[in-house]
Amino acid sequence: MEGKLKIIPLGGLEEIGMNITAFEYEDSIVVVDCGLAFPDDDMLGIDLVIPDVSYLKENIDKVKGFVITHGHEDHIGALPYILRDINVPIYATKLTIALIEHKLEEHDLLGTTKRKVIRFGQSISLGCFRIEFIKTNHSIQDAAALAIYSPAGTVVHTGDFKVDYTPVFGDAIDLQRFAEIGKKGVLALMCDSTNAERPGFTMSERTVGKTFDSIFAEHRNQRLIIATFASNVDRVQQIINSAYRYGRKVVVEGRSMVNIISIAGELGYLDIPEHTLIDINEMKNYTDDQMVLVTTGSQGESMAALSRMAADIHKRVSIKPGDLIIFSSHPIPGNEKAVSHVINELSEKGADVIFQDVHVSGHACQEEIKLIYSLVHPKYAIPVHGEMRHLRAHAAVCESLGIPRENIFILHSGDVLELSEQSCRIIGKVPTGEILVDGLGVGDVGNIVIRDRQRLAEDGIVVVVLTLEAYTNRLLAGPDIISRGFVYVREAESLMEEANQVTADAVFSCLDRNVSDWSKIKAEIKDALSDFIWKRTQRRPMILPIIMEADA
Amino acid sequence: MEGKLKIIPLGGLEEIGMNITAFEYEDSIVVVDCGLAFPDDDMLGIDLVIPDVSYLKENIDKVKGFVITHGHEDHIGALPYILRDINVPIYATKLTIALIEHKLEEHDLLGTTKRKVIRFGQSISLGCFRIEFIKTNHSIQDAAALAIYSPAGTVVHTGDFKVDYTPVFGDAIDLQRFAEIGKKGVLALMCDSTNAERPGFTMSERTVGKTFDSIFAEHRNQRLIIATFASNVDRVQQIINSAYRYGRKVVVEGRSMVNIISIAGELGYLDIPEHTLIDINEMKNYTDDQMVLVTTGSQGESMAALSRMAADIHKRVSIKPGDLIIFSSHPIPGNEKAVSHVINELSEKGADVIFQDVHVSGHACQEEIKLIYSLVHPKYAIPVHGEMRHLRAHAAVCESLGIPRENIFILHSGDVLELSEQSCRIIGKVPTGEILVDGLGVGDVGNIVIRDRQRLAEDGIVVVVLTLEAYTNRLLAGPDIISRGFVYVREAESLMEEANQVTADAVFSCLDRNVSDWSKIKAEIKDALSDFIWKRTQRRPMILPIIMEADA
Repeated sequence: MEGKLKIIPLGGLEEIGMNITAFEYEDSIVVVDCGLAFPDDDMLGIDLVIPDVSYLKENIDKVKGFVITHGHEDHIGALPYILRDINVPIYATKLTIALIEHKLEEHDLLGTTKRKVIRFGQSISLGCFRIEFIKTNHSIQDAAALAIYSPAGTVVHTGDFKVDYTPVFGDAIDLQRFAEIGKKGVLALMCDSTNAERPGFTMSERTVGKTFDSIFAEHRNQRLIIATFASNVDRVQQIINSAYRYGRKVVVEGRSMVNIISIAGELGYLDIPEHTLIDINEMKNYTDDQMVLVTTGSQGESMAALSRMAADIHKRVSIKPGDLIIFSSHPIPGNEKAVSHVINELSEKGADVIFQDVHVSGHACQEEIKLIYSLVHPKYAIPVHGEMRHLRAHAAVCESLGIPRENIFILHSGDVLELSEQSCRIIGKVPTGEILVDGLGVGDVGNIVIRDRQRLAEDGIVVVVLTLEAYTNRLLAGPDIISRGFVYVREAESLMEEANQVTADAVFSCLDRNVSDWSKIKAEIKDALSDFIWKRTQRRPMILPIIMEADA
Repeated sequence: MEGKLKIIPLGGLEEIGMNITAFEYEDSIVVVDCGLAFPDDDMLGIDLVIPDVSYLKENIDKVKGFVITHGHEDHIGALPYILRDINVPIYATKLTIALIEHKLEEHDLLGTTKRKVIRFGQSISLGCFRIEFIKTNHSIQDAAALAIYSPAGTVVHTGDFKVDYTPVFGDAIDLQRFAEIGKKGVLALMCDSTNAERPGFTMSERTVGKTFDSIFAEHRNQRLIIATFASNVDRVQQIINSAYRYGRKVVVEGRSMVNIISIAGELGYLDIPEHTLIDINEMKNYTDDQMVLVTTGSQGESMAALSRMAADIHKRVSIKPGDLIIFSSHPIPGNEKAVSHVINELSEKGADVIFQDVHVSGHACQEEIKLIYSLVHPKYAIPVHGEMRHLRAHAAVCESLGIPRENIFILHSGDVLELSEQSCRIIGKVPTGEILVDGLGVGDVGNIVIRDRQRLAEDGIVVVVLTLEAYTNRLLAGPDIISRGFVYVREAESLMEEANQVTADAVFSCLDRNVSDWSKIKAEIKDALSDFIWKRTQRRPMILPIIMEADA
């Protein structure tokens, strides 16, 4: 009797980002993608979030490698952290490997990590699995879908994709190969859900190039500054094309964009006419109408180049009346206010701002999703990449195509889906979770620390200190009160004096009653002070009583 | 020689909310609106923001009254705070006064505040000014524009408005009166800029009613839950109309909505067929297809009724598969992620969610703005209500109408604009600012406290305490280290032990050198510890050294 295939998403469901999925068949595990997520607003002070891969650690002997679909952070960003425990080879297309290598270098992991460039159409064998890379289109070059062949059947994983019949660089998505694989029989399709709420088709990247051309034609006398995603090399290519056509030099600004453009350039993924790209230091040799700046900061990120220009803290570029700033992007949900803030600052300086219709998505809309299902014709549908609303919308698309509801699986991270030609069901759960990265610390900030930060952020802290003599419990010093983030003390002298009195009363009451249990003294201080503060201010600062012991 | 009119915006420019503008002529000041703003994301722990009205306090003898355009929080919300210092009469239309009274009652200010209901078309005399209320349309009933007649000339202030030829309740905007006043000569027009970036016309509120009808018709068997703005009584009216037409009972849920609906009902601003409105406790007597819930929470506010339903913590309503939830609203910028979070939770519970095309704006788009200018024909244009991007877009609309650039004034809060038939210019600046309200505290949280909260939120706090003997500076207790929000101490024992050692070294080094200046000891502890922590964790918690003095 044949074995069964297990699909175990360790992240990337119910959330945007942190994409990582294990495929397991007997003694082989292959991991598709290894992404990070950006912290939610309530994860105070956190830099990034990576998946809990305990399951892979426990089964380290089975893990054959990472197969990466494309080079975006939500698909590669956790690698430098996860590789410390799961040091297995990485397989991906050329640009994806180059971006991973850049990352590994920063983390000093290049020497210890095996990696292999795979071409489209090529297959690799990893344990019981054979995995084929299929050309797709996306907002970064070299994006791949995967055909995952196992003894239990074939699974097609689209990665992030769109259908672009006229891509800027390289070939269109290999629809023929999707059809061919589909014709031979596919057990399950795991397809991108990001735009599953949107009807219709996502427009070709080339349409943005046409828009650039008309903007360049209409604004011949203004300095142009275009903000877009650092990794969208095709977008930058189109800006270069328009610039060349309209006789402008191109300056690229913003660390991540300079990096990626240089990597893509070295690989031959960018076609730059001679003398078109100039260094930012050469800007002074050109008039406004002779150049275009391409910059990071399209999401209003506070330290990105465009935001620094808008806030007048950029070293080399000052915004001035007549500048035309183009946001070639849509705000990612959650960034709307930051983007608007930058637009306001630019407007304040007299710049004109264009932020509509200069962007297309990199993800498939409903008609493209339907197209892929019609080519692959899977038995089971497993919507991936998206929050619950997107997965549910994707499931509705599947139902509209006639896929029976019981063959559509909306998984949660950690679900173990076991499937074969005969059956498909969730048979269990493995541990998953979010590991928080804060500075150099990985996982040392958890729920308790985050809750403390939230409390501190809301109303600050009031520290109460006193010193008691050992054994006698005689009060040697204090109680003193120090607050931070609670109230401006100079303007609230009487409040703080009363708070001092309330604290002293609580302490003396304890000492008079010979309470010797310090945790009880602390509790009484906390209760008295927080009651007083709530009544007077309706705030709940963290109250931190500290009792010191002095030798007699 | 004739005097000059001064227009002094004390808030509401460069920001959304906090609308308040002083009109001054010789010894008379009239204040239009008195709104609050909601805190920015970086104003941690702040409940709301009110304007600094020092200028009014200094000129209290001149201030004749508040004239309020409509009952939204960004136009009335600061009244209970400002009235404590500026206790002058309030003039507004019926619903607006009723909403203000509800607010004053909560703040126990009803007995001490004079207020007067003004009808559309009616004028009031306040010092040198005569002020006429003109009917407009907006997303709340009884919204008024103002014609402000001064000896220096007439200013028309639109308030928040749209042009709705077929409003749900009451009359359409009184375009004839705008024309009549315009024909007599208007010095300046202060017009709503909120939608000045949008071309075209804002659709009539009635179009949403048609959408409700088709949703009710298509989903006869599902329970319907509709979230919208509490103050949009016309929207609720249209839900009631559709409910009645399709044989459903209406339940209103959410404290603010219940309040406003009851106030509007008492005034006769709602037409509710008998037995249509039922109490939430009667819900159990009806099947899903026999009712519709109208609820607060359309902005994803965490404590609003819909959010509590979605999070399964609502006492009386549990979301279940088959429920249809309709967001009759657009997310206000900054709320997108919160709204999406609620949609995900609803989807997770198997509910269907509609969030597109079930809302119209309450603000005028470009063609409506042009219409008002064409009727009023002002000499000077002063765009109001909006962030810089909106004011600039509004100015561009003015220029397209042929208003000379030098007659368009984009003001900043505090600017004193002096105008007469002959001239218009900014002649000075008065103090303005944001007063933060946190719990019961008004203004006791300022920049220093906010910066401390931001620091605490980012990386927490490390408290160092030690006790020194008076005069001798002998170390009696400590140094002890206690942290909150920095690191989970149990998982970071060695880090905390080393931190202890670093601190002790710094303390002993000071004592060995007989450093007696405590601020110097504190500084050395701070430097040593923050260096150590940065090197080891790349975090910058607040370091708070506390030295206690014990009597010898």
